[in-house]
Amino acid sequence: MAVDGLSINLATVREQYNMRQAIEACLKQDVVAIAPWRDQVHAIGLSEAARIVADNGLQVTGLCRGGMFAAADAAGRAAAIDDNRKAIDEAAALNADCLVLVVGGLPAGSRDIAHAREMVAEGIAAILPHARAAGIPLAIEPLHPMYAADRACVNTLEQALDICDLLGDGIGVAIDVYHVWWDPKLGEQISRAGAGGRILAHHICDWLVPTTDLLLDRGMMGDGVIDLKGIRRAIEAAGYQGPQEVEIFSAGNWWKRPGEKVLATCIDRFRSAC
Amino acid sequence: MAVDGLSINLATVREQYNMRQAIEACLKQDVVAIAPWRDQVHAIGLSEAARIVADNGLQVTGLCRGGMFAAADAAGRAAAIDDNRKAIDEAAALNADCLVLVVGGLPAGSRDIAHAREMVAEGIAAILPHARAAGIPLAIEPLHPMYAADRACVNTLEQALDICDLLGDGIGVAIDVYHVWWDPKLGEQISRAGAGGRILAHHICDWLVPTTDLLLDRGMMGDGVIDLKGIRRAIEAAGYQGPQEVEIFSAGNWWKRPGEKVLATCIDRFRSAC
Repeated sequence: MAVDGLSINLATVREQYNMRQAIEACLKQDVVAIAPWRDQVHAIGLSEAARIVADNGLQVTGLCRGGMFAAADAAGRAAAIDDNRKAIDEAAALNADCLVLVVGGLPAGSRDIAHAREMVAEGIAAILPHARAAGIPLAIEPLHPMYAADRACVNTLEQALDICDLLGDGIGVAIDVYHVWWDPKLGEQISRAGAGGRILAHHICDWLVPTTDLLLDRGMMGDGVIDLKGIRRAIEAAGYQGPQEVEIFSAGNWWKRPGEKVLATCIDRFRSAC
Repeated sequence: MAVDGLSINLATVREQYNMRQAIEACLKQDVVAIAPWRDQVHAIGLSEAARIVADNGLQVTGLCRGGMFAAADAAGRAAAIDDNRKAIDEAAALNADCLVLVVGGLPAGSRDIAHAREMVAEGIAAILPHARAAGIPLAIEPLHPMYAADRACVNTLEQALDICDLLGDGIGVAIDVYHVWWDPKLGEQISRAGAGGRILAHHICDWLVPTTDLLLDRGMMGDGVIDLKGIRRAIEAAGYQGPQEVEIFSAGNWWKRPGEKVLATCIDRFRSAC
């Protein structure tokens, strides 16, 4: 009996398993939706990854990740666009629901975030025709403002949706509660995203108090302060009915535990706390 | 010859000096504007602090801080309001330009940030008549979203200005570049704040890459990625002509250096990087 509505982003168990092992562990616990990272795909090979996905009838709720568009020079920007086209092809081979875009922060040495944001919009525009042709929706993931400098200069749902509106079809957003839970405009922007058919993914974890590391101290659902049930209700009311995808980076805690226990906890908390 | 346009928030040298020593060190380097924290004032006594300020003709660009309105019960909320009234009186005794409000995060055990935000607006409304009577403007300081849970659930300038518009006169914002530099709506909201006469303070420091601690790893101006000159231009174009106030919490670096060198560096960077 499949665990309906739950997807496991394989970063959650990346220290315990390679992609093949992670899928086996998910299947043992009746989880039939996953989201791999590209390095995990590359480590076992794209064709083997695609075969495992197809043979097991898995839903791939997203491929992580494209993006990283802002670069200090034209060669860097062109290389990013090439790599994003490859990522689109990989997402298509895996039959993924979307390619998640972490758009990139400031180029080295830059203090010009407005310019970085322009480069991001231009980069996405450049790859969008390829994505449309491949049938892979692009999911801009607004990242928490604490990552604006080094990971993503798209930091609110409103900003991401403005880019979507600019670019037209074939693009939407990945809503990760960790990045957006604090936003005073969250409710209205979820509604807006739903009305535009822009919600492509719903990622979950929790915000711990205190948070001891900016990147690798995400919490298990229920251990923090995010109103997961409320955000889920808003996202579902806006029309998104896909799985919730658990994505937890946790160097000090969950990455140190046995993978099967982490997965069991994800399932348990998905049922009780989300 | 005074260092025009520079104020030192005394938290910047809080590990090196008490309030009296910090002011002496500032005066030695011709800094004539300061902003103390209440614990620093209490440590030497309010009347003594007020005497030092008055005797030296210092500008007090703000008293840090009131706020912390959200509480789990009515008694907690009432205690916060009482304490804020005392803070207003202290700001008046010091002839401060404003009382800075760090509004508070979620009450313990709560996941309801919308309710916390309601409590904040109600708390500010409750103390505003006292502030007006004392002639002390209240400066809501929107804090970076990474502090939404535990320090301040007002996280953007837009949100802070919405509260100001709701409450009327005698209230504005403290714009700290560290908290707002990432905001895609920063420019338009600075203009809005200026048009409404709402800019009461301008705090500076820098965002380091990487940032190793959520609270105590702020950078010296010029050492990070914030476009300090650009934000200053926007704030001055919006009509604010007061000092820039340096506020650096830096457990691993600046708090460990000799106070006079920290102050000299603040002056140097204020001239070259801001």
